[in-house]
Amino acid sequence: MALYVKKFGGTSVASVAHIQRVADKIIEDKETGHDVVVVVSAMGKETDRLVSLSEEIDYRGNGASRELDVLLSVGEQVTISLLSLVLLKRGYQAESFLGRQVKISTDSSHNKARIVDIDTKEIQKKLENGVLPVVAGFQGEDERGNITTLGRGGSDTTAVALAAALGADECQIYTDVQGIFTTDPRVVENARRLERITFEEMLELASLGSRVLHTRAIEFASKYRVPLRVASSFDTGPGTLITYEEKSMEAPIISGIAFEGDEAKLTILGVEDVPGIASAILGPISESGIEVDMILQNISADMSTDFTFTVNRDDYSQAMEILTKVSDQLGAREVSGDNRIAKVSMVGVGMRSHAGVASKMFEALAKESINIQMISTSEIKISVVIDEKYLELAVRTLHAAFDLEE
Amino acid sequence: MALYVKKFGGTSVASVAHIQRVADKIIEDKETGHDVVVVVSAMGKETDRLVSLSEEIDYRGNGASRELDVLLSVGEQVTISLLSLVLLKRGYQAESFLGRQVKISTDSSHNKARIVDIDTKEIQKKLENGVLPVVAGFQGEDERGNITTLGRGGSDTTAVALAAALGADECQIYTDVQGIFTTDPRVVENARRLERITFEEMLELASLGSRVLHTRAIEFASKYRVPLRVASSFDTGPGTLITYEEKSMEAPIISGIAFEGDEAKLTILGVEDVPGIASAILGPISESGIEVDMILQNISADMSTDFTFTVNRDDYSQAMEILTKVSDQLGAREVSGDNRIAKVSMVGVGMRSHAGVASKMFEALAKESINIQMISTSEIKISVVIDEKYLELAVRTLHAAFDLEE
Repeated sequence: MALYVKKFGGTSVASVAHIQRVADKIIEDKETGHDVVVVVSAMGKETDRLVSLSEEIDYRGNGASRELDVLLSVGEQVTISLLSLVLLKRGYQAESFLGRQVKISTDSSHNKARIVDIDTKEIQKKLENGVLPVVAGFQGEDERGNITTLGRGGSDTTAVALAAALGADECQIYTDVQGIFTTDPRVVENARRLERITFEEMLELASLGSRVLHTRAIEFASKYRVPLRVASSFDTGPGTLITYEEKSMEAPIISGIAFEGDEAKLTILGVEDVPGIASAILGPISESGIEVDMILQNISADMSTDFTFTVNRDDYSQAMEILTKVSDQLGAREVSGDNRIAKVSMVGVGMRSHAGVASKMFEALAKESINIQMISTSEIKISVVIDEKYLELAVRTLHAAFDLEE
Repeated sequence: MALYVKKFGGTSVASVAHIQRVADKIIEDKETGHDVVVVVSAMGKETDRLVSLSEEIDYRGNGASRELDVLLSVGEQVTISLLSLVLLKRGYQAESFLGRQVKISTDSSHNKARIVDIDTKEIQKKLENGVLPVVAGFQGEDERGNITTLGRGGSDTTAVALAAALGADECQIYTDVQGIFTTDPRVVENARRLERITFEEMLELASLGSRVLHTRAIEFASKYRVPLRVASSFDTGPGTLITYEEKSMEAPIISGIAFEGDEAKLTILGVEDVPGIASAILGPISESGIEVDMILQNISADMSTDFTFTVNRDDYSQAMEILTKVSDQLGAREVSGDNRIAKVSMVGVGMRSHAGVASKMFEALAKESINIQMISTSEIKISVVIDEKYLELAVRTLHAAFDLEE
C-alpha cells in the first residue's frame, strides 16, 4: 500500500479519449491497493488558445498579470472536471480540486508564483474516506484570495510539491516519452532508457536540453527528497526513477549525453584583466533580456584577457551589437563570433571519481576529426562546443565510446 | 452619481471585438461619473462547447453535478479576465471577480443553486477605491468551498442579486434586443418598444414566451425592488425599464401581447367529479417530466367533468399515451387532443380596473372569424387558445385593436 502522486501533462489529456486512457493508469494503481492523488495539466492546445485570446487584447501593463492568471487557470479546471467524471462513471469516488481547494498557497507573483505552503488536511481526509482526488496543476491562490499560476512547468511543480507535502512514496510524471534516455533516441537509435538517475544528473540533463522535466520540479523533488518517476502515458513501461544518490547504488560513470544545437558563441579579445570586467561585459547583455549559457574566461597574458560566452542563435546578432558597443567602451582589441556551433555534454555522477572520462571523450572526438572549440566542466558534467555540422556524429561517437547502448 | 450593475450576455461578449464594444458601454457610464459593477456571461457558444465535452463522457450519477459545475463555471472566468484586460488597456482600473471572490454564497444544489447571501464588503471597498469590478455571472460557492452554478438565466440572477445587495440604482441587462416590445416585432412590424413595464406584467410576458429575461431574475428583482432595465448591447437606445407599479404611473390598459406556438392540448372527458381527480390525472404526466402549461376544468354535469391541459408540442404523443392509460384507470368516457394549437395572451396591469378588455379582445378575434377554443385569465392577463394557423393574424389583429402600434 503506497501513496502515488500521478501527474499527466497536456498531450496525455488532449481529448476525452486520451482522458479515458489516463483513467486506466489510475485505476490500475487503485486496483493494486495503492492510494492515488492525480494532478493534471490543461488539455492539449487549450493553454495556447487562451493565450491567443489575451494576445488579441495585447495589454501587459499594470493589473494584466493578475487577469492573465484568471484566464490561464481555466485550462486545468476543465481537465479535472472531465477526468473526475470519467473516474466517477467507472465507479471510483473521484473528486476534483482547484489549487485553492487543496490549499496551495503561493506568493503574489502572478504568472510565476512560488508555492509558500500546502495544507494537506483536506486531501488527507478525502484519502482516508476512499476518495480519489484529482487536482488542477499549475495554479494556486495568494493570501488575498487571488488566483495565481506557477509559470512554466507549473503542473510538474504542483505534483512534486503535493507529493512532498503528503509524504508520497513516488511522484510519477506521465508524459509522451518512455523515460530518460542515455541520449536523444532520434539521434542515436539504440539509446537506452535509464532505470534510475540521480537528481543531480537529471538537473544537468534538463538544463542541457533533455526537456522532459522542468528544472524547477526536479530541484523541488531533490530538495524534499521526493522520488520522481518519468514514464509514458501511452505505454506500460516503468519509465525512469529519479532519486537521490544512495551509497549502495553502483553509479555508472556516464548516465547520458545531452546536446544543444542552435547555439552561438561570442568572444571579446584583449580586455583589461581587472576586477569587475566580467560584469561590465555581461551586464548589458543580460539587461537586454538575452540568456547567456556557457561563460568562459581563460588565463590572461600581458594584463589582458579573452572572454567568451554562448547564447541562443536567435539572439546572436543582437548580442553581437551590444558586445561591439561594450568593446568600444572597454577599449578591447577585437570582437569575434560564430553562430554555427553546438554543445555536447556528458553527464554522470560516476565521473567524480574517474579522471579518465575527459581524456577518453576528447580522444573519441579526435578520432573522428571533430575539433573542440571550448571546454567547460562541472562536478558531474563535461561540455564541449563544436562546429554544428558535427553534432550528430559527436553524439553517436560518444554514445558508442562509453558503451551506453542497449 | 448613480450606481449601475450592468450585465452582458453571451452574444454580447462572443469575441474580443464584441468585448471591446461592451467596454465602450461601460466607459460611457464611468465618464458620466457613475459607478459601475459589471456582470458577464460566457462567450457565445463557450458553454455549449463545455457541455458537449461532458456529454462525450455522459455520466449523470453521484458526484456528476459537482464536477459539471467545476466545468461550466469556466466560461464566465474567461470573459471576466478578457474584459478586465480590455478595460485596463483603456486606462480603467478594472479587476475581475469570481463568484466566490464577490462572496456569492449559495446552497449546495449543484447546477441549480440558490443564492443564500452576498457579502458586498469587498466590492464596496473596491468601488470606493475607484476600481471597476468585473464579476463572473452564473456562479457561486457553497459553504464547503465547492463551486456552484445557478442554472438557466443564472447570470441575470447574479446581476439582479448583486444590484439588490449593493442597493444599486439600476440593474441593466444588455442583450440582443432593443427592449421589451408590445409584441414580437417579427410578427407585428410596427410593434412598439415599451418605455416602462411593471414586474408583474414582465413576469406574465416572460413566462408566456417573450424570452428576453429569465423569470427567476424578474422575480428576484421584484422581490428586492431593484429597477431592471433591458437594453441592446449593439445599439444606444434606452431600452425598457421594468419597475414596481407606482401610484403616479398612468398604466396603459394593455402593455403587450405574448404568444406561443408549438403547443398541444389534451382533454379527458367524462371523469368523475370528486376531490383528488386533478392530481390523479396530472400526477403521472408531471412524474414523466412533461411540463404542463394551462390547466382548465369547467363546471361538471351529472357528477362528471371534463379536464383540459396544454403541453409543448414535442411532448404531445407521450402525454397522450399516459393520459390514455389514466383514462382507462379512471373509467373516463373519452380522451381527445389537438397538436396544432397556439396561445395568445394580452397582459397589462390596467386590465384590473377595466372589465371591457376581454369582450373587446373576443370581438376583435370574432371579426376575423378566429374561433376561440379555450380561455384562461389571471389578474393582469387574458389567454386564449386558437388554431395555430391563425396565430399571426390574431396577434396583428389584437395589436391594432388595442392601439399598441408606434
